[in-house]
Amino acid sequence: MLRTKEQYFEKLFKMKPNVYIGGKKVTRDDPRLRPGLNVLGVTFDLAQDPKWKGIATAFSPYINEEVNRWAHLPQNPHDLLQKQKLIRLAARRVGGCIQRCMGHDAINALAICTKEIDEAKGTDYYNRFIEYLKEYQRKDLVGTCAQTDSKGDRLKRPSEQKNPNHYMHIVEERKDGIVVSGFKMSTTQAAYADELLVIPTRALKEDDKAFAVAFALPADWDGVKLITRPVWLREKDDKDAPPFCTYGVSDSVIVFDNVFVPKERVFMCGEWEFGRRLALLFADSHRHSYSGCKPAVSDILCGAAALAAEANNIEKVPHVKEKLTQYAGAAELAYAAGVAAAVYGQKTSSGVFFPDPIYSNVGRRLTGDLIYHEYNLLTEIAGGISVTLPFKEDFLSEETKKYLEEFIVRNPNLDADYSLKLWKFVENVGASPMTAWYEIAGVHGGGSPIMETIALSIEYDFETRKNLARYLAGINKDFSDDADLNKEPNDIK
Amino acid sequence: MLRTKEQYFEKLFKMKPNVYIGGKKVTRDDPRLRPGLNVLGVTFDLAQDPKWKGIATAFSPYINEEVNRWAHLPQNPHDLLQKQKLIRLAARRVGGCIQRCMGHDAINALAICTKEIDEAKGTDYYNRFIEYLKEYQRKDLVGTCAQTDSKGDRLKRPSEQKNPNHYMHIVEERKDGIVVSGFKMSTTQAAYADELLVIPTRALKEDDKAFAVAFALPADWDGVKLITRPVWLREKDDKDAPPFCTYGVSDSVIVFDNVFVPKERVFMCGEWEFGRRLALLFADSHRHSYSGCKPAVSDILCGAAALAAEANNIEKVPHVKEKLTQYAGAAELAYAAGVAAAVYGQKTSSGVFFPDPIYSNVGRRLTGDLIYHEYNLLTEIAGGISVTLPFKEDFLSEETKKYLEEFIVRNPNLDADYSLKLWKFVENVGASPMTAWYEIAGVHGGGSPIMETIALSIEYDFETRKNLARYLAGINKDFSDDADLNKEPNDIK
Amino acid sequence: MLRTKEQYFEKLFKMKPNVYIGGKKVTRDDPRLRPGLNVLGVTFDLAQDPKWKGIATAFSPYINEEVNRWAHLPQNPHDLLQKQKLIRLAARRVGGCIQRCMGHDAINALAICTKEIDEAKGTDYYNRFIEYLKEYQRKDLVGTCAQTDSKGDRLKRPSEQKNPNHYMHIVEERKDGIVVSGFKMSTTQAAYADELLVIPTRALKEDDKAFAVAFALPADWDGVKLITRPVWLREKDDKDAPPFCTYGVSDSVIVFDNVFVPKERVFMCGEWEFGRRLALLFADSHRHSYSGCKPAVSDILCGAAALAAEANNIEKVPHVKEKLTQYAGAAELAYAAGVAAAVYGQKTSSGVFFPDPIYSNVGRRLTGDLIYHEYNLLTEIAGGISVTLPFKEDFLSEETKKYLEEFIVRNPNLDADYSLKLWKFVENVGASPMTAWYEIAGVHGGGSPIMETIALSIEYDFETRKNLARYLAGINKDFSDDADLNKEPNDIK
Amino acid sequence: MLRTKEQYFEKLFKMKPNVYIGGKKVTRDDPRLRPGLNVLGVTFDLAQDPKWKGIATAFSPYINEEVNRWAHLPQNPHDLLQKQKLIRLAARRVGGCIQRCMGHDAINALAICTKEIDEAKGTDYYNRFIEYLKEYQRKDLVGTCAQTDSKGDRLKRPSEQKNPNHYMHIVEERKDGIVVSGFKMSTTQAAYADELLVIPTRALKEDDKAFAVAFALPADWDGVKLITRPVWLREKDDKDAPPFCTYGVSDSVIVFDNVFVPKERVFMCGEWEFGRRLALLFADSHRHSYSGCKPAVSDILCGAAALAAEANNIEKVPHVKEKLTQYAGAAELAYAAGVAAAVYGQKTSSGVFFPDPIYSNVGRRLTGDLIYHEYNLLTEIAGGISVTLPFKEDFLSEETKKYLEEFIVRNPNLDADYSLKLWKFVENVGASPMTAWYEIAGVHGGGSPIMETIALSIEYDFETRKNLARYLAGINKDFSDDADLNKEPNDIK
Repeated sequence: MLRTKEQYFEKLFKMKPNVYIGGKKVTRDDPRLRPGLNVLGVTFDLAQDPKWKGIATAFSPYINEEVNRWAHLPQNPHDLLQKQKLIRLAARRVGGCIQRCMGHDAINALAICTKEIDEAKGTDYYNRFIEYLKEYQRKDLVGTCAQTDSKGDRLKRPSEQKNPNHYMHIVEERKDGIVVSGFKMSTTQAAYADELLVIPTRALKEDDKAFAVAFALPADWDGVKLITRPVWLREKDDKDAPPFCTYGVSDSVIVFDNVFVPKERVFMCGEWEFGRRLALLFADSHRHSYSGCKPAVSDILCGAAALAAEANNIEKVPHVKEKLTQYAGAAELAYAAGVAAAVYGQKTSSGVFFPDPIYSNVGRRLTGDLIYHEYNLLTEIAGGISVTLPFKEDFLSEETKKYLEEFIVRNPNLDADYSLKLWKFVENVGASPMTAWYEIAGVHGGGSPIMETIALSIEYDFETRKNLARYLAGINKDFSDDADLNKEPNDIK
Repeated sequence: MLRTKEQYFEKLFKMKPNVYIGGKKVTRDDPRLRPGLNVLGVTFDLAQDPKWKGIATAFSPYINEEVNRWAHLPQNPHDLLQKQKLIRLAARRVGGCIQRCMGHDAINALAICTKEIDEAKGTDYYNRFIEYLKEYQRKDLVGTCAQTDSKGDRLKRPSEQKNPNHYMHIVEERKDGIVVSGFKMSTTQAAYADELLVIPTRALKEDDKAFAVAFALPADWDGVKLITRPVWLREKDDKDAPPFCTYGVSDSVIVFDNVFVPKERVFMCGEWEFGRRLALLFADSHRHSYSGCKPAVSDILCGAAALAAEANNIEKVPHVKEKLTQYAGAAELAYAAGVAAAVYGQKTSSGVFFPDPIYSNVGRRLTGDLIYHEYNLLTEIAGGISVTLPFKEDFLSEETKKYLEEFIVRNPNLDADYSLKLWKFVENVGASPMTAWYEIAGVHGGGSPIMETIALSIEYDFETRKNLARYLAGINKDFSDDADLNKEPNDIK
Repeated sequence: MLRTKEQYFEKLFKMKPNVYIGGKKVTRDDPRLRPGLNVLGVTFDLAQDPKWKGIATAFSPYINEEVNRWAHLPQNPHDLLQKQKLIRLAARRVGGCIQRCMGHDAINALAICTKEIDEAKGTDYYNRFIEYLKEYQRKDLVGTCAQTDSKGDRLKRPSEQKNPNHYMHIVEERKDGIVVSGFKMSTTQAAYADELLVIPTRALKEDDKAFAVAFALPADWDGVKLITRPVWLREKDDKDAPPFCTYGVSDSVIVFDNVFVPKERVFMCGEWEFGRRLALLFADSHRHSYSGCKPAVSDILCGAAALAAEANNIEKVPHVKEKLTQYAGAAELAYAAGVAAAVYGQKTSSGVFFPDPIYSNVGRRLTGDLIYHEYNLLTEIAGGISVTLPFKEDFLSEETKKYLEEFIVRNPNLDADYSLKLWKFVENVGASPMTAWYEIAGVHGGGSPIMETIALSIEYDFETRKNLARYLAGINKDFSDDADLNKEPNDIK
Repeated sequence: MLRTKEQYFEKLFKMKPNVYIGGKKVTRDDPRLRPGLNVLGVTFDLAQDPKWKGIATAFSPYINEEVNRWAHLPQNPHDLLQKQKLIRLAARRVGGCIQRCMGHDAINALAICTKEIDEAKGTDYYNRFIEYLKEYQRKDLVGTCAQTDSKGDRLKRPSEQKNPNHYMHIVEERKDGIVVSGFKMSTTQAAYADELLVIPTRALKEDDKAFAVAFALPADWDGVKLITRPVWLREKDDKDAPPFCTYGVSDSVIVFDNVFVPKERVFMCGEWEFGRRLALLFADSHRHSYSGCKPAVSDILCGAAALAAEANNIEKVPHVKEKLTQYAGAAELAYAAGVAAAVYGQKTSSGVFFPDPIYSNVGRRLTGDLIYHEYNLLTEIAGGISVTLPFKEDFLSEETKKYLEEFIVRNPNLDADYSLKLWKFVENVGASPMTAWYEIAGVHGGGSPIMETIALSIEYDFETRKNLARYLAGINKDFSDDADLNKEPNDIK
């Protein structure tokens, strides 16, 4: 089924209230959550639109139906390219983060990892997960991924923490399920997701067995509390707020206080050897998703900067032209990394097609390294006006209106209304609470540059390069492996 | 006289209301202006404190009295070093921009330039200005500098603009003064300054004669409107708000609508040849002031990052240690540029001692190039928590308090209260409306990197370097000038 | 025919001597040219090796035979991926630049552009060129591309130059051909190429008609002089020189002094409107080739740095690990750009499949921006030894041998012979005449970063981004084009 | 005494031959050493020239005579400013490294450290050293500093090395002196220095006692072998070589094979607690010296780039102008760091005035971080010609001369002779063996950026910044220390 936005909202509003904002328990129709709901709404709208059939939707071999692509498991490289394209075009429409890839990347990670655990351990998680997935696809659910634990002391492993709640853990194993406790944090979208998909955040050792746990629960399940922080734009309440201001995001600290998880929703339970694998499967899938959304963020910043340059009539100034092309570099190199990850990705034992992790990581790292710089570029081009522009009310008030309408017009070809909308947009993009959120999420979402550096440090084929150097140096007699270049590109169709 | 903070407030509150915020005319005791007033308050407190005598104060040869250093004209390199030190230590206390250097740099520029105009033109601006200055020093006034015009089309000069109000200009010359109109923008501190010091923003040609105008007016003068945008921190209203949240800033669009300026307050009137000089004198003095305040911003970011590292227990992680030293580089290179500018500065014909512009410009450019990166460093070290931390009320509410107090403690040596205060500080520093203001002011305040690049392009001694290259290349027979190294360091005492 | 290396050499050595080195005319078996010949030799060896069939070779639809891939015109995206792979693996074996892509990119540009000229002008260049190409493929010829004119005054167009020889131009048109004059410079490989493929270097206006000329000539043709500068490694003469030292490069200034070009070898003659197009077709194809070779350069630097780290026993030091992953970023982002350029490339009217220029340009620019930094990384890891290591003879001499053999062993697991070979390799890679060549060619070869910036400034779809921003700002009602995302990925097989 | 260049040469040529180059023992008049001798010659010429009295010379309170400043111990901040100026102007004349600061920084470190050892241990090194120094000053000797040990395994301390020769160590203590063995490496200037000043390279622990040794020896002392690598420019042999090509450098591996050091030349003998101190005193003094020489390197690159821009007629192109100002930033920020280090330096117990280490380190790190980038800038502006320019002989040969003389003239205002000299200079500066030497010495000489990062990590006052953050966060009640700003600037006269 492809739900409509309205159906999604309807189900949400019926959920048990377990969202807390600013010291109060609130229902999911709280206006502060609305900007986030609007973002998710776009993911339903696109799937309803025949224009985007095959991009916003996909055919699921699990239920033999067309599903929303966010609920789909990629089967081939073409699926990954379509996902990348979908994320970019959806992210454009909501001004940045489309959020729903969280669930997409989590179901992929779980599908692959449950299969691998089963193969290694003779367990039966995969089928259990696929049953869950069918329901997820049939109902067109929105899942978020609760991965980041609160972590406590960063140099200690989970079992070494003074307070075990800093990592999600199994408190009790019962016949019919498990009881878990712990804090997950920085979980985007939790307050308006149908489902929470919970997975480990890091590599585990045998002592950390109790922390090797993965499961799914409805977001309003007993014992779950979502302490939520919405990001709030000044202009969002305007009845004629521009699109950018109608979209937004909320993040939650999720408290699990002795929560019971029914067996059929448990997808890992003590298999500590797979902690790192599951964490990385999500991370690498998510890093590939960044190759779609982050270019969209660059697109928006590029557009804002280009309009600001036009309004300042400095579009032809060489340093401005050069700066604008930096957005092209940022966006298209990241997008190219996603394309290459698809072309050189591989089929996993579960049947899910997975992007190449090297390309996913170099692409994601680039975006994390550049994000602050991209805001810097906008600031350099737009000037200081975005933090000193009078409030909108001053543009409406009798006493100041006539001055400000003159003031705001720099390029005489653009009228006051256009100019005000533009500069308010530059402010909202580059100097609002959303700015800080995008800067910081741009560094850390999906794993910070330092995490990709660690991944590359472990996974990049340095051995081939050392052998090459040994050959050229005359230490080794020959060089013939090129192990890293032996992969055939996958067929794309 | 060294005024007290209270005296400063008292005078302000008696001023005629001509400040507009959000569509309403407000008095200067409006709570949204209070954070800015508090910043200025510190400049009075320091001057009252015997500990800072000689740093926060100076002896003025113009009135033969001890004055607040912000009202002082530097007479020697030591004065510049003291100014730099004062700015850094004051800026530390208010969490960044101390604002009052605006007035300081404007009176310096006016003292020097009026003398030079007189010398070239036989006018009598200098004495007029010194009379004004004496009053300014005696009353310990707060002046702001209204330099940035709204500029309109950036590729057109003032006289070419469709709307002349985009640059301040003389509408009429009378026997007893002049009438001026125009918009000044992004003027920090205007809403709580005693005086507006108005100077040109750029080089002028003969056609732009009407735009060659400089003067001073009380900030509540007839015909002047201050349309003001305060920056607003969420926590500022807390009765136990931390110091960082009690300080803030406001910027104004200043409308001059056929405003009469009495003759004794006019310091330039048509001398278009000095437009660039006066603009640059202010800019270069202000760029030197940045060698004091910007290191303080780095100090604060460095402190926040170091505390975050401590709380995450990652202080000893090599990449964190390396990142922390980047703040040392940013702060101390900028500070060193200010020191060198003092040591190799020069006495102007007015008697005012002026910092070397090459050092002022390379220092200021460095800070403008690095500011976003410094926020990036904080984000990398602190993690994503600053944009996802629940609101303070959730830490107080019955239902969520116990969880969040556990949640917030990462380093077991730091208790919940300390941890919450710290992470809220990281949020306020790195992910609040002040963040955007500091990022953007950090790029553009005192002139953007591109402006310093232009200044260096014009003023740096490329000819000596070309001669050097011609000598080493065998094109010229010898090289003996080293023109740029002939300056003797100034005595510092 | 797939020639052997020996056949290539044999033909070369029979050519008329028109190569000048150091003031003397030399034959093509001059030892200073040998390192370059060895590089080209590898392109023949690979094509002979069954292991690389389909990579080093391709099936030409023009002559219905298997040809050396360097002489092939790509017909589909898979061809571009194979070309990229071939270039990377060949470049690895010769320590960097494989040189023969020059000819490859020139024949592609000529095939496409001659077709387009014919379509616009009704000329018959395409068939003429294809006839030439068939011969080129059948004989497995090595062509170089002589594009860069000496240019003279960079701000003047060709027809404005005081000395017209600064751009290749037509001196006379005859029935049976044309007479041309001018200087081409920085032409790699000319001294050991069979053919010179001459094309314009820039956009032309109508006045520049005489400069709109493209043609092919044997490299030893009458009136052609190749004033050649070989790059010379100290160790290359050792009888046991390591592979890296046996490969090298030569560049030529090519003088055309009233040279006659037979009509069947003329592929553009006065069609100034196509000057920019032909120049860019070569450039963009060549920029795509960089997505193969430049990653190989990063591979070699990465290998050298990793071995140096091993020898210093600092492989596990965090900053070293981080630096090594920077090579992964440099190499794989550039490679990914090439992959995306293939996946989103397009069929031209000539039937040749052409890489997407946006991806080619962002990829090439990245490599040009990073090259010096990559040498910097090697230096940081390897330390200063590469410029202070005693000469090899000191390692052999009685009096110093015993000390140096102790001296050179840092990591006790590596013996003196290994250590010496390694550090000499680090020297040869990072501190030899080849280093300067690779640094500078890395910036300028195929077009400097500034050229890619200009290309992106013209070709990137800023309009879509501006429309997106106008939509999000509330200026435009909707946004639905995503023009840049409408391209379907090409099938790869 | 102020020796003449000739006197310096004369003494050198009488030394016992113990220099080895390319497998042969050579005398010190070997032409391959001449470029280095010429550099040192300039340090004597400047001291002879009355124009530079007080800069190239100084008054020594130790012998009450005017001495060459390179042999002087700074007594006050003015001395440091003069040293900085001298280094910059001398370095300009020799195309970069002036080399003699090695000895200067070593005598400073020894004067300070011997005093501190005496104070802590009751030894009598200081007087012994001052006696040595008097002789050194009286004879105007050239000393080099042999600091860098060959180090072996970088993760092991000296006493842990498998081969103890990787660090200089005491083999035997006798009544009249000590016997030492070990390898010093990368020692610039050793082959043409009068004296070797040997000091430790790193911090030591008690087990490393035998490695805590410092002493001075004539460079041709028994048992000392200098295995030397000269850097060799192609054009240096021209009888009309341009100045740049007549200067150069040599580095030596110095073998100490059971060498006896007389007691009066031993300045540390087992005091392992001072290993780090002595190493750092030299390093920090040397890092301050970089604030003089590295700006000169930037000056030369800037001049070369500016002349290349002029010859290409692109001086007015915006990106070129911007790039040229980057040299201003690099040079003057480094120079400013040196000025601030002098202004805020301090008197040591020995009476020697020492530069502030924070400023010395941030300055030196900046230069090390930028050096490759500065060569990159030159390459971007000059284009590829420096690696493809025909050899000089081709410009003289009958057959090619007329073409190349046309070819080389780009800017019609500059003739062929000028143009050739210029482009050869660009080649010699940017693409010669000296280039690699300057790139790599620019990173590592005086301590690599990573070493300055470590120094800053230890010495920067993070505690003050943490306290500041705790105050602003509301954790601490107040903030009043500003410990780092309490230093008074030193008087400069």
